Amino acid sequence: MTNAMMTNPMMTNPTETNPTAAMLVIGDEILSGRTRDANMHFLAGELTKHGIELKEVRIVSDDAAAIIAATRALSQGYNHVFTSGGIGPTHDDITADCIAQAFDARLDVRDDARAILQAHYDTMGTELNEARLRMARIPDGAALIDNPVSAAPGFTIANVHVMAGVPSVFQAMVASVLPGLAGGQPVLSQTLRVMRGEGDIAATLSALAATFSDLSIGCYPFQKDGAYGANIVVRGTDGTRIDAAMTQLAKEIDQ
Amino acid sequence: MTNAMMTNPMMTNPTETNPTAAMLVIGDEILSGRTRDANMHFLAGELTKHGIELKEVRIVSDDAAAIIAATRALSQGYNHVFTSGGIGPTHDDITADCIAQAFDARLDVRDDARAILQAHYDTMGTELNEARLRMARIPDGAALIDNPVSAAPGFTIANVHVMAGVPSVFQAMVASVLPGLAGGQPVLSQTLRVMRGEGDIAATLSALAATFSDLSIGCYPFQKDGAYGANIVVRGTDGTRIDAAMTQLAKEIDQ
Repeated sequence: MTNAMMTNPMMTNPTETNPTAAMLVIGDEILSGRTRDANMHFLAGELTKHGIELKEVRIVSDDAAAIIAATRALSQGYNHVFTSGGIGPTHDDITADCIAQAFDARLDVRDDARAILQAHYDTMGTELNEARLRMARIPDGAALIDNPVSAAPGFTIANVHVMAGVPSVFQAMVASVLPGLAGGQPVLSQTLRVMRGEGDIAATLSALAATFSDLSIGCYPFQKDGAYGANIVVRGTDGTRIDAAMTQLAKEIDQ
Repeated sequence: MTNAMMTNPMMTNPTETNPTAAMLVIGDEILSGRTRDANMHFLAGELTKHGIELKEVRIVSDDAAAIIAATRALSQGYNHVFTSGGIGPTHDDITADCIAQAFDARLDVRDDARAILQAHYDTMGTELNEARLRMARIPDGAALIDNPVSAAPGFTIANVHVMAGVPSVFQAMVASVLPGLAGGQPVLSQTLRVMRGEGDIAATLSALAATFSDLSIGCYPFQKDGAYGANIVVRGTDGTRIDAAMTQLAKEIDQ
């Protein structure tokens, strides 16, 4: 890689003052191909709307060493970390244990979490048995995350927000957490769909990116019915600048 | 976390002699929530069939430092690394540069790759312009990966297989690479779908996992029409053992 490329203004991040985030997805079922993850796509969209920039996602298996190492690395690298999966009542739910260990925090059944579960299962006429009580184990110092879907809370410790893997519960927990986090400028985007190969429009895009160095200009190719096309996406926080770039782009692509 | 838990035989990996792999997905469009990744789910399924265990996935943005760091870390941690995205002709395609830098390899247009592109674009009556020629830049020492869909090759350097992000091209490249890699024992699985809450069956599963410590037993909850259910997945390489576990499981869950 040349130095020119490393400092290329085209690679400037237009939202570099916004808070950053990473996501840690915990679950063998995604890595084995059995399940297709849905939470990442949901979180990405919500964070973008809130002005928090999702910079990295890691997916690891139900392996304690892997979860602990990833939690520490991401917690140190980004303003926020969101985890999904592994906080249920069964033997393969080891996320709370691992997160506590990542922060050297004690983990035990906590009264506030137990009271939430007790009230929930009383209403349902279900016993709060030993397995379910595992879901009341919360690290010392953590704040609970409200779960209006199925009661069992998530928790926030340091900058790590620990949430469930079931999509309906994950989404409800994100809705509980996000309003309390400082957001940045919402990232706006416009897309131009072009039925031309990337190689035809690359020079135009390169020049446009140099002119609008405060914006991020991405080109995402696709194939449809044997023909080549591309979605050109212009992103940034200044809507007027995005409009100007799109106008110039449309004009140049038409020529 | 207690020591008992850290050494719990339930957490044993039944395929720990199989080769391991990681995937590195490169692309802002996935982190912004604009696009939902499809390649990871495809690769996970193909690797499982081939007896290679996908242990980790990382998704990073079009950022040189992030791509280089992730490439080095994953290359050192696993037997194979598969990347997707960022090898097209436009200014935001920086993957080849980053991979070369991760291995301190020189990157330039290579004659074999140029010949492939020249033949392809000659057939199409399209000019092999400067932008398209970027796709012939291959690190010294890398082997080309065949691309029967759109010609521009991927490449393998050390244990890293660099492939396109467009799903049809990614899938074709996986089909080119995978037969040449040593696989392990295919991982088999059976699933029992139960319309009971996880908390009801947790003790049964825990005992089953202790009895069948050579298998991996996962419990994946869901909610459907307000009711709680779970998919219990038994995985391993010995079909007879999986049958035995499923028979015992069905019997115990019925009681």
